[in-house]
Amino acid sequence: MKRARDFGLVCGSLPPGPLNAITDVPGVRVGHRTLVDGDVRTGFTALVPHEGDLFREKLPAAVEVINGFGKSCGLIQVEELGQLETPILLGNTLSVGTGFEALVRRALAANPDIGRETGTVNPVVMECNDGWLSDIRALALTVDDAHAALDAAVSGMVPEGAVGAGAGMSAFGFKGGIATASRLLTLDGRDYTLGVLVLANFGRAGDLVLPDGRRPEVPKLRKSDFASVDAPERGSVIIVLATDIPLESRQLKRIARRCGAGLAKLGAFWGNGSGDIALAFSTAARIAHHETADLLPRMVLNENRIDLPFRAAADATQEAVLNALLAAPRTRGRDGHMRPSLADVLGG
Amino acid sequence: MKRARDFGLVCGSLPPGPLNAITDVPGVRVGHRTLVDGDVRTGFTALVPHEGDLFREKLPAAVEVINGFGKSCGLIQVEELGQLETPILLGNTLSVGTGFEALVRRALAANPDIGRETGTVNPVVMECNDGWLSDIRALALTVDDAHAALDAAVSGMVPEGAVGAGAGMSAFGFKGGIATASRLLTLDGRDYTLGVLVLANFGRAGDLVLPDGRRPEVPKLRKSDFASVDAPERGSVIIVLATDIPLESRQLKRIARRCGAGLAKLGAFWGNGSGDIALAFSTAARIAHHETADLLPRMVLNENRIDLPFRAAADATQEAVLNALLAAPRTRGRDGHMRPSLADVLGG
Amino acid sequence: MKRARDFGLVCGSLPPGPLNAITDVPGVRVGHRTLVDGDVRTGFTALVPHEGDLFREKLPAAVEVINGFGKSCGLIQVEELGQLETPILLGNTLSVGTGFEALVRRALAANPDIGRETGTVNPVVMECNDGWLSDIRALALTVDDAHAALDAAVSGMVPEGAVGAGAGMSAFGFKGGIATASRLLTLDGRDYTLGVLVLANFGRAGDLVLPDGRRPEVPKLRKSDFASVDAPERGSVIIVLATDIPLESRQLKRIARRCGAGLAKLGAFWGNGSGDIALAFSTAARIAHHETADLLPRMVLNENRIDLPFRAAADATQEAVLNALLAAPRTRGRDGHMRPSLADVLGG
Amino acid sequence: MKRARDFGLVCGSLPPGPLNAITDVPGVRVGHRTLVDGDVRTGFTALVPHEGDLFREKLPAAVEVINGFGKSCGLIQVEELGQLETPILLGNTLSVGTGFEALVRRALAANPDIGRETGTVNPVVMECNDGWLSDIRALALTVDDAHAALDAAVSGMVPEGAVGAGAGMSAFGFKGGIATASRLLTLDGRDYTLGVLVLANFGRAGDLVLPDGRRPEVPKLRKSDFASVDAPERGSVIIVLATDIPLESRQLKRIARRCGAGLAKLGAFWGNGSGDIALAFSTAARIAHHETADLLPRMVLNENRIDLPFRAAADATQEAVLNALLAAPRTRGRDGHMRPSLADVLGG
Repeated sequence: MKRARDFGLVCGSLPPGPLNAITDVPGVRVGHRTLVDGDVRTGFTALVPHEGDLFREKLPAAVEVINGFGKSCGLIQVEELGQLETPILLGNTLSVGTGFEALVRRALAANPDIGRETGTVNPVVMECNDGWLSDIRALALTVDDAHAALDAAVSGMVPEGAVGAGAGMSAFGFKGGIATASRLLTLDGRDYTLGVLVLANFGRAGDLVLPDGRRPEVPKLRKSDFASVDAPERGSVIIVLATDIPLESRQLKRIARRCGAGLAKLGAFWGNGSGDIALAFSTAARIAHHETADLLPRMVLNENRIDLPFRAAADATQEAVLNALLAAPRTRGRDGHMRPSLADVLGG
Repeated sequence: MKRARDFGLVCGSLPPGPLNAITDVPGVRVGHRTLVDGDVRTGFTALVPHEGDLFREKLPAAVEVINGFGKSCGLIQVEELGQLETPILLGNTLSVGTGFEALVRRALAANPDIGRETGTVNPVVMECNDGWLSDIRALALTVDDAHAALDAAVSGMVPEGAVGAGAGMSAFGFKGGIATASRLLTLDGRDYTLGVLVLANFGRAGDLVLPDGRRPEVPKLRKSDFASVDAPERGSVIIVLATDIPLESRQLKRIARRCGAGLAKLGAFWGNGSGDIALAFSTAARIAHHETADLLPRMVLNENRIDLPFRAAADATQEAVLNALLAAPRTRGRDGHMRPSLADVLGG
Repeated sequence: MKRARDFGLVCGSLPPGPLNAITDVPGVRVGHRTLVDGDVRTGFTALVPHEGDLFREKLPAAVEVINGFGKSCGLIQVEELGQLETPILLGNTLSVGTGFEALVRRALAANPDIGRETGTVNPVVMECNDGWLSDIRALALTVDDAHAALDAAVSGMVPEGAVGAGAGMSAFGFKGGIATASRLLTLDGRDYTLGVLVLANFGRAGDLVLPDGRRPEVPKLRKSDFASVDAPERGSVIIVLATDIPLESRQLKRIARRCGAGLAKLGAFWGNGSGDIALAFSTAARIAHHETADLLPRMVLNENRIDLPFRAAADATQEAVLNALLAAPRTRGRDGHMRPSLADVLGG
Repeated sequence: MKRARDFGLVCGSLPPGPLNAITDVPGVRVGHRTLVDGDVRTGFTALVPHEGDLFREKLPAAVEVINGFGKSCGLIQVEELGQLETPILLGNTLSVGTGFEALVRRALAANPDIGRETGTVNPVVMECNDGWLSDIRALALTVDDAHAALDAAVSGMVPEGAVGAGAGMSAFGFKGGIATASRLLTLDGRDYTLGVLVLANFGRAGDLVLPDGRRPEVPKLRKSDFASVDAPERGSVIIVLATDIPLESRQLKRIARRCGAGLAKLGAFWGNGSGDIALAFSTAARIAHHETADLLPRMVLNENRIDLPFRAAADATQEAVLNALLAAPRTRGRDGHMRPSLADVLGG
């Protein structure tokens, strides 16, 4: 599988991590469950932030709603408390309820005190609409599928393109999907990593701009495909950002906002119908659910150094979307709908 | 069933509607599905804003997150677009996913174009944690239960107290639950109504203040009940506000915020663990999903007159919570947990 | 001068600090400059958060806009960076520009590198409209007056009532003004203080509720005074909250929001025309302007303990407003406008 | 003076207005007051939204804080009420107080009821830091200068580049400044205009990307100039957006947000130290200060058509910044600091 850099496409000047993937952030794992069956091309992707129990050891987190035309659950509480307490599930728009239930069942199983001696749990599920290529009305995804994605989560290279939640996604008139990128940066003489995972299902055909200024044309479409090109955008893009830089949630929110700059550099303007959401977390501190101390030590980033992760967030988002477009093959889906591959156009 | 006014408790000086209920707003219906079975005391309450298909005829709406320690779905899109496009479901914390699926299934059944020629749908589900009185870990609520609540929705007086989503709720150390109140106001010589429906599950024992300044004591509890009194608040309160006043969503948001003032007048300070959320909508305009005109006529409220609905929102919220407390009988739930009734204390 | 507690009025159960004042927070100083001359009754109040140079040693801070019908400067940057870098000036509505210039001149004088080797400075000025009692059109306040308030800043008891920025303010139909209160709380076995300073110029006549449930009547007014009672509220209230609890800015913002609960307990509903703003800062950490380290150690509050400062913020705000009302004597201002004193009504 | 289109640089596919300027929006006027004297290169730019008295006839408006590291006044109230009630002044960072006073004095002179029978006024002033080229510590701008900018406001073509507030600004290592662009769009068969005015003082040297993909190099700088290239960005960019499309403030806020996409397309990522703020207003409706009706008719945009103004906002912002860069000549300022001209590099 070739990636953006194999096509000579590089976003920004910061160096990528060893895998150029969100899994370069120590402890972060990604798993896919892909469902391709008849008119159905969909799936779940799970992002597991650390190896422990997220409910017992939460992470500082923040959400940036770039454009809120999107479903989801869990974001309100992340915004208020600045904490993430479950793995993150990405799916299709109508599977948010299923994802919610899947995360609840896992949390209940692992934590017998939930709903008894302690409170409840805040599942985080985000989505894009894959209804152009997939029969989203089939409500094909199940709680078991979500669990399968969670169980598949591994470190190492992340399968990209038309996999997991990315199976049926489209972007800029091409086949879209899921992909990742990362950047390395040095603070106080130590290396840190910032990685993003994108579920790319946004952008109008004709709007895509490559980092070298080229504007690849979407190959001539069959008549039945034209509709979607002219129709109002009904896509979305979800960005999950992970880093091991110590950050408070206000800083994470500022960094998450810069993912939107990465999208704009690709030619997007965060269209009305596009649910563009970035969720960021830091693995540098764990927040114990049953913490007994009243006051807790933390490390935070000197705000004057935040341009570095700002740049990393924008650049990695831009490159991850390109990785998604280039990894996803030409795909035909429900009712004969087709999406060409950007890799084919670029002569990869 | 006696209500706050039967105990001489009146909030503010604006007159209530004929039923002193959210159903005084023409077209608004409320339905309950109550589940009481062994250690389970829970349910769904459905609020149906108008008689038509909400997806085809949306309403201006807004959300105010008073304190975001709460689960839910759909609020992000309401905030962005200022539109409500499904009925509203209230349930327990772990039933949000079930509610999401129930609303999706109904919208798909009624709208064959969803996920085909048009986009998806944004279900709105909100919740409180009834885990003190009910076995919330049982995940007892089903899609059928949610549909039953929707199908039960009627105009006229709303059953209050330990019904629907209110079955297992607690507030200020007493049995809480669901209830409603309304206010009439005159604009340009015409009468308008503002009504609220509350799901009351918030407030520390000992904090409750009545409108006449009294602070009712929570009756001596059995040893097993003490924990909850001293424990950090794990409650929440959901407020749905409906009005036929023409309002844009920014105005609805400002009005929704004043529901928080009503809570504070009762003695609450929006505790950390309390997911306090108000969602407001206006029935004065309908937003067609397939609108063909580019520019649309609207009526809006002169901002200089907004103190009137501000007052109405605060007062009706305060009174609806009292109605919930007074309608809910002394209740024993899971593991012998008990909540006394405020009505018993006030000698009603 | 008698205060709320001298009238038997106590808000909440947390103990106050030794002075029951914001100056109980170590290092915090307050200074007034009062201008009473003919039809002018106005002034500046300065809050100086620590003894050093705020520009070089900034403090974590946050803003909560309870109702944004208010002028001010500096709040946007406090919201973004979570930092306060000047003392805070409170004045009348039309003096914000003068306060801005006063703080700029002081910062330039103390920091020759501003605008040369380093950036600029973010002055924070907030205000209420004292135009009912004072000739606000006279633009009487000068840069020298602002400097006089800053120079007058002292620790110890804060003069309250019709002094400084409070000289011409009104609240609930009574003479309002400036006042303070504080609360003590214990974390990890150590005592901490949370204090507020309020500039009270809000609330409709007849809406005031005392902590014991009484609703004091505004004494019969002369004909010329009636207008203001029936007219839409054009007041405001500014709350400055200081604490030595270690808090990140997100936590400070949550705490600042609870000042609004204190206002509601007094009978307010944050009227349309009332610019109700709370600014909170913590003295527990200093943020060096020329910090050289990339990562910085901080202490933060365990979020599960935040109900304690929530309560303290609501209660201290409520009590500080009562202190303002009780300290301010019956006052006649421009054009014969009069405000009675709450102390006279309560028979103090 | 040559503009971006004279260099073959076109942003997006929507047609510009006749002047490609914010003054294409009927009634909008712009005026400059430029101060060049010794080490001082600064000024005020005034944007006057309509020919009447803004205080008596307010306009729907909204603010989008892209990055809040900026001073300003008036934005909090615009956000709350969705209304603009004064002309807009742009100046340098330390002149916000002066601008506030200038707008107050004009409003008082025109409205004898302010501060007497009616409330006060909310002046809107925004700024960038021109301290690299200008002696910003001189506090050179006066109330008279602000009034001169207001009095100079005219319709027709707007002088661009190093004029008014743009006199001392820098962007992407080049001389920046003030400029404008506009787009035409058709709704319900009628033509509408959306225009922006930018004060461009942002962007790191080396980050600029032209619409054709070129990345112009900043000419070799003298040693004394290097500092600013490597130093953290201390710039900012202010965007004022005007349109005659009927819009409610929520829609204006969404549109204003897309100005940030235009900045990102130029290579910016909204750096930490850059106060990037967009303020948008619509001239399609006027909000009478002394409105007597309670309910008011309005036209609003069908939300499904909002991608058109989204695109226009992003494209016009991008092009206006290029116009600023190309209009501003090579400039030497205080202490010998120099900024080259992009026009020279492009061989215009």
